Amino acid sequence: MILNKFIVEEHIKNALKEDIGFSDISTDATTDGTQKMKVKLVSREEGVLSGVEVFKQVFEILNSETKVEILKKDGETLAKGSIIATVEGDARTVLIGERTTLNYIQRMSGIATETRKYQDKLKNYKAEITDTRKTTPCFRLFEKYAVSIGGARLHRFNLSDCVMLKDNHIALVGSITKAVEKVRKKLSHTHKIEVECDTLAQVKEALECGVDIIMLDNMTIPEIKEGVELIKDKAIIEVSGNVSLSTLEEIAQCGVDVISSSAIVAKAKPLDLGLDV
Amino acid sequence: MILNKFIVEEHIKNALKEDIGFSDISTDATTDGTQKMKVKLVSREEGVLSGVEVFKQVFEILNSETKVEILKKDGETLAKGSIIATVEGDARTVLIGERTTLNYIQRMSGIATETRKYQDKLKNYKAEITDTRKTTPCFRLFEKYAVSIGGARLHRFNLSDCVMLKDNHIALVGSITKAVEKVRKKLSHTHKIEVECDTLAQVKEALECGVDIIMLDNMTIPEIKEGVELIKDKAIIEVSGNVSLSTLEEIAQCGVDVISSSAIVAKAKPLDLGLDV
Amino acid sequence: MILNKFIVEEHIKNALKEDIGFSDISTDATTDGTQKMKVKLVSREEGVLSGVEVFKQVFEILNSETKVEILKKDGETLAKGSIIATVEGDARTVLIGERTTLNYIQRMSGIATETRKYQDKLKNYKAEITDTRKTTPCFRLFEKYAVSIGGARLHRFNLSDCVMLKDNHIALVGSITKAVEKVRKKLSHTHKIEVECDTLAQVKEALECGVDIIMLDNMTIPEIKEGVELIKDKAIIEVSGNVSLSTLEEIAQCGVDVISSSAIVAKAKPLDLGLDV
Amino acid sequence: MILNKFIVEEHIKNALKEDIGFSDISTDATTDGTQKMKVKLVSREEGVLSGVEVFKQVFEILNSETKVEILKKDGETLAKGSIIATVEGDARTVLIGERTTLNYIQRMSGIATETRKYQDKLKNYKAEITDTRKTTPCFRLFEKYAVSIGGARLHRFNLSDCVMLKDNHIALVGSITKAVEKVRKKLSHTHKIEVECDTLAQVKEALECGVDIIMLDNMTIPEIKEGVELIKDKAIIEVSGNVSLSTLEEIAQCGVDVISSSAIVAKAKPLDLGLDV
Amino acid sequence: MILNKFIVEEHIKNALKEDIGFSDISTDATTDGTQKMKVKLVSREEGVLSGVEVFKQVFEILNSETKVEILKKDGETLAKGSIIATVEGDARTVLIGERTTLNYIQRMSGIATETRKYQDKLKNYKAEITDTRKTTPCFRLFEKYAVSIGGARLHRFNLSDCVMLKDNHIALVGSITKAVEKVRKKLSHTHKIEVECDTLAQVKEALECGVDIIMLDNMTIPEIKEGVELIKDKAIIEVSGNVSLSTLEEIAQCGVDVISSSAIVAKAKPLDLGLDV
Amino acid sequence: MILNKFIVEEHIKNALKEDIGFSDISTDATTDGTQKMKVKLVSREEGVLSGVEVFKQVFEILNSETKVEILKKDGETLAKGSIIATVEGDARTVLIGERTTLNYIQRMSGIATETRKYQDKLKNYKAEITDTRKTTPCFRLFEKYAVSIGGARLHRFNLSDCVMLKDNHIALVGSITKAVEKVRKKLSHTHKIEVECDTLAQVKEALECGVDIIMLDNMTIPEIKEGVELIKDKAIIEVSGNVSLSTLEEIAQCGVDVISSSAIVAKAKPLDLGLDV
Repeated sequence: MILNKFIVEEHIKNALKEDIGFSDISTDATTDGTQKMKVKLVSREEGVLSGVEVFKQVFEILNSETKVEILKKDGETLAKGSIIATVEGDARTVLIGERTTLNYIQRMSGIATETRKYQDKLKNYKAEITDTRKTTPCFRLFEKYAVSIGGARLHRFNLSDCVMLKDNHIALVGSITKAVEKVRKKLSHTHKIEVECDTLAQVKEALECGVDIIMLDNMTIPEIKEGVELIKDKAIIEVSGNVSLSTLEEIAQCGVDVISSSAIVAKAKPLDLGLDV
Repeated sequence: MILNKFIVEEHIKNALKEDIGFSDISTDATTDGTQKMKVKLVSREEGVLSGVEVFKQVFEILNSETKVEILKKDGETLAKGSIIATVEGDARTVLIGERTTLNYIQRMSGIATETRKYQDKLKNYKAEITDTRKTTPCFRLFEKYAVSIGGARLHRFNLSDCVMLKDNHIALVGSITKAVEKVRKKLSHTHKIEVECDTLAQVKEALECGVDIIMLDNMTIPEIKEGVELIKDKAIIEVSGNVSLSTLEEIAQCGVDVISSSAIVAKAKPLDLGLDV
Repeated sequence: MILNKFIVEEHIKNALKEDIGFSDISTDATTDGTQKMKVKLVSREEGVLSGVEVFKQVFEILNSETKVEILKKDGETLAKGSIIATVEGDARTVLIGERTTLNYIQRMSGIATETRKYQDKLKNYKAEITDTRKTTPCFRLFEKYAVSIGGARLHRFNLSDCVMLKDNHIALVGSITKAVEKVRKKLSHTHKIEVECDTLAQVKEALECGVDIIMLDNMTIPEIKEGVELIKDKAIIEVSGNVSLSTLEEIAQCGVDVISSSAIVAKAKPLDLGLDV
Repeated sequence: MILNKFIVEEHIKNALKEDIGFSDISTDATTDGTQKMKVKLVSREEGVLSGVEVFKQVFEILNSETKVEILKKDGETLAKGSIIATVEGDARTVLIGERTTLNYIQRMSGIATETRKYQDKLKNYKAEITDTRKTTPCFRLFEKYAVSIGGARLHRFNLSDCVMLKDNHIALVGSITKAVEKVRKKLSHTHKIEVECDTLAQVKEALECGVDIIMLDNMTIPEIKEGVELIKDKAIIEVSGNVSLSTLEEIAQCGVDVISSSAIVAKAKPLDLGLDV
Repeated sequence: MILNKFIVEEHIKNALKEDIGFSDISTDATTDGTQKMKVKLVSREEGVLSGVEVFKQVFEILNSETKVEILKKDGETLAKGSIIATVEGDARTVLIGERTTLNYIQRMSGIATETRKYQDKLKNYKAEITDTRKTTPCFRLFEKYAVSIGGARLHRFNLSDCVMLKDNHIALVGSITKAVEKVRKKLSHTHKIEVECDTLAQVKEALECGVDIIMLDNMTIPEIKEGVELIKDKAIIEVSGNVSLSTLEEIAQCGVDVISSSAIVAKAKPLDLGLDV
Repeated sequence: MILNKFIVEEHIKNALKEDIGFSDISTDATTDGTQKMKVKLVSREEGVLSGVEVFKQVFEILNSETKVEILKKDGETLAKGSIIATVEGDARTVLIGERTTLNYIQRMSGIATETRKYQDKLKNYKAEITDTRKTTPCFRLFEKYAVSIGGARLHRFNLSDCVMLKDNHIALVGSITKAVEKVRKKLSHTHKIEVECDTLAQVKEALECGVDIIMLDNMTIPEIKEGVELIKDKAIIEVSGNVSLSTLEEIAQCGVDVISSSAIVAKAKPLDLGLDV
């Protein structure tokens, strides 16, 4: 996934404004524009790096003359003590930007690290981990990017890039069959249809409609197995609900294609990174 | 803390746009503007509610005719199964807004719930828990609000509402004494000065400068105790570093005033809330 | 397709600002806020209505007390003289909003009208007309909406909701096969793959890769026929290039699924609508 | 007319966001940031170039290191096959920006081309062609610029730079005389007054008021001639209504000063330009 | 001049955000959403009211349920003690909005009051006072509006609604004659031409070019008189430079049409208005 | 105080758009992009410089290739005739940017000049001058910056960086004591409390509450003296009301710490600066 700089720029500016308020009064009083600083971004724990270009852009937005050298790329594994980048420039730029830039890269690396753990568990299976739309409001782009860096496959980005028929849609229309019929009348030929199924009866109905993806939602392992048996190659099989590092392999062993989980974003902890002089 | 509706509005609109993309193609195909829906917001686990006004505003932005009735207020304790609010209106509004509104209220309630746990542990102590500036970029207002609802005292909102002299500021200028001197020449009489101290020698220096708040940073319990002894009533005593639910009381017992921790925000998990028909 | 009011709002405000400048000096001088006006929106030629909700919203943004009654809905056929809506309110609102609101609805109805002509020609064929990404910058949402009202199926909205491998992508990677392979490694399971083919050899290669949609680009009728023969039910067949009202049926007769054309947007003329007292 | 880069920038960014969505998933999968591309912008039909600086700016916004060499300037005549510019840079930049940049320059050149046709017909007459406020919402700046490049004189940009009294203003106030009187009380001495006249009686009334510009609206050729006779040098004579390439000379021969028409913008077709490797 | 609410809205929101920061911590701590307040807007000195609709809108933006009753309209004369409006609503709304709303109405009324003084001095003369483009950045709309309420005629709003040839333009091109010639080739027929003249020789040259407005810039009274004699009815006569309340009548007596001065905006003092319980 | 370029940028862009409208039609007609210009910024009267970086940024935003050399820094004293900076570049850039850039620097320097006068009067006293929140809406950042350059100490920037209990807060709650009590329950330990006192009885009550700052509001000199006697070192003493250059020393002689006045911003006149070829 490409994180276009010009798209990210406004978010970073708003984040900096949020953290600066009207002026950094501590830095204002202790600097005068003549002092220089050189710091390095260091990892204080193991993990997967994500967001190093954003880290750089924060300082460039503050002051286009800041020199940021990137030593590790997104996706690389970090050891405790790894030096990720160096920043050199006006002391005011370094001091003012520090917290905001760390807030981005720590969260993004935390998500990539968490995702990698899931993906590693699935190495020997066909199944792949994927994210959800349970993200922090106005921060999804960064979270999805971090998930992709962590090695997961992305689920749909928003409500417009894949049809997902949920219980409420189905209830409104009457049945999966009717809902799919309605969708087919309007849907772009470039979009797929996914149906969320709570029961095996629903799985059968969805199959008969010829949908592209069937989500087995909150099913037990035996139910998932039966679902897989029913669907086989006729649709992509996605499992959702009760997904954690400990249940992951059991689900994968059922032969599913995709396992979606909000945990890789929502439960990831910021990776401990810091700026050292 | 007051969450002004007109300030929050733009963030919510951007979050909705982020989730809608160009159009909700599932809802578009299965509804036609004539169907109505009534849902209730239910808690699926215990916790502290935060963000119910934001929850309401999301639906009102989508469609000003949506009726949202609020049954629980921010700060109230939720049991598993508590009904928090009801939403009634055009089925399209409910379906399109569901994920975004839950993304706000689940995260905000998660933070309030986590904060409450810390605050509860401190009931019998003078010490209070406070947050930090380690927040999600562009989401700080919501996180700080949730922290305040959880019962914590807020630390400074950004770089402009209190001076905080950190190691890097002190290193640039030469000493705490010189840094405070410089600050005093420029500082508004309406602002306080806090100094981050790593050693007891620094604590003594800061004390002699007559600063308002002294932060004992990453100190051991014996060091904290000694620091408290030194400072007593001459400054507000803040402790930071290695703060967790398990270390909290031990720190509080040292007699400090404020314990700051990023964990109440960064490590909080979204509270499990859902919309039921 | 749903045109969410809160999303459209900012565009309308900018359009009004563009047309007002600092103040409508003609209306300012001839009105004083006490005069009322009632006008009706009338069609001066035959066509298909599109954008009547936008028409209404323009006046509501200018003055929330304006009464706009909608008499015809989007998608309805207009005769010469059809009354589409009435507007009643402060004369200043009517006079200031007139040009901007007509600029929206005339263009949108023009596109719907043009699209309907294409769609009508295809009534007896499997093939459907679809649009492209050749749209007016920052006006795509309105144009896509008008296309959908005209009865066409929408192609992908932007670069993120379907893979489309074009000559340049293929050239960069070496072959269709390699390109599809690379895509499969990263692609969300919720997205489809379309490949643009200039030759029947490319069609065969794409077929072997099992892509979802094959576009026959700028092919002659005999080539299209051969392409259809090759592909049959193994992929969705899209034709592009040299599409016009006069070539449409000939292409449809080849048995293709989708015919995409920028003409329904780019060559549509504004429908002649006006405000009469 | 000067198209200031910093003013145009936001529009281009929004157009790019509109076309990119969350990420160009085709380009993302087939490139990795190491491939370079060089393309040239070629005209596939005859016309007048307009928007080449915008074309360049699109790529620079995407990636400031892209090299765009401009070979033809706005206003130059293009032959089929003319090379207008070359673009060299990261393959991702070229692929992601292609559609958006073409959408600008094709439309702008289409308008300039159409305008030039009108202007050419008027070479031997005093009369000049001018545009109207019937433009695409939020795209007027680009359209007006293209019109000026095509060689036309611009009409007022918006409601604030010239008074134009239309039938509705006159009806509200009672008569042209009363309307002009009211206007004179408030009007800046830097602004002109134009009156739209449907009848020769109105022309006479407007003349007596000493207005600056008289628009003969939807009049027949004999009426226009009579109008010109009445007005002579006492006001600028503008004709509007039923203007097309075929009626243009007949109108010009009447001796009018300005002929305004929405057709040069609304009926212009995008000029066929493309990027070739 | 019409101050459209939807245009002004964004400015007011930004002003409120500027003054609120993250939250009004004084009001937050002393109110809980249950207290009501009723205040009246009172004039503490004599002057001319301007901005009362903006005053109202500030409170409505903060809380749409606030009741603001307007008792005096823009343009009315205020005595010391005049009650201008009453505000009733949530105490938080009143307290949070007070300073921002006063900042608008005090400045706007100050400008209207200053302008009125100038205009009153000119009662018995043909000459009228007009403003300039020397305004506070991003606040011009409010300042121009206040000037118009004060009774002055407005000069051009910005660089696009009237040509004004200044010394630098003339120097670049060579002479007034050449500059006007160049302008005539491009200028819209809807725009006027004004020329700034420092000498009577320039006045003669401008006259020969047949420009619409001639500005006598920084001339002595005898020079102005001579200038008026030269120009008479052949152009609008504007005087600029050294304009103050004490020189005004002397200038008017020369027989000029317009006297432009930045003083009515730049030197106006905020009118003393306050909110009383 | 640091005026971060990226924060100021949007304000400058909006100011330029406000002044340009759709295009500078005078400059458009008299230039063609080939002429160069070199001008210098000259002071036409004595004063204190403020805003020279903003002056530079205006031209850079218009055209990144403009060369602006800064010869005097903010805070320096200007004599009549002092050359502050030189600007060299495309004539269009210089002509288009002139008015906007002067509008910033003239106002900012005017405020710095006025502030310096106050501060100079206080040289031999403990007391310092400070500003208020009575600023031009959306222009506070520039005004506060100018005040700081003028040598004053800044009061709180907005409602969120210091508690200020005013008569209305106190009236709502019942007494100063109750209000301070309520504040203490919620207030961040990083914020101070200021109380506005109209009487000496209130001063005593505030003192007993142990607040940080006591404002003696609109008191007579004898009252101020008595207030100082009461407070001494127990709180910071601020005086407000009836502050002018002529009353300043008398107030300072009372022994107060801070004198706040809106006059340094509201009554400052733009410093006379101009661009000379």
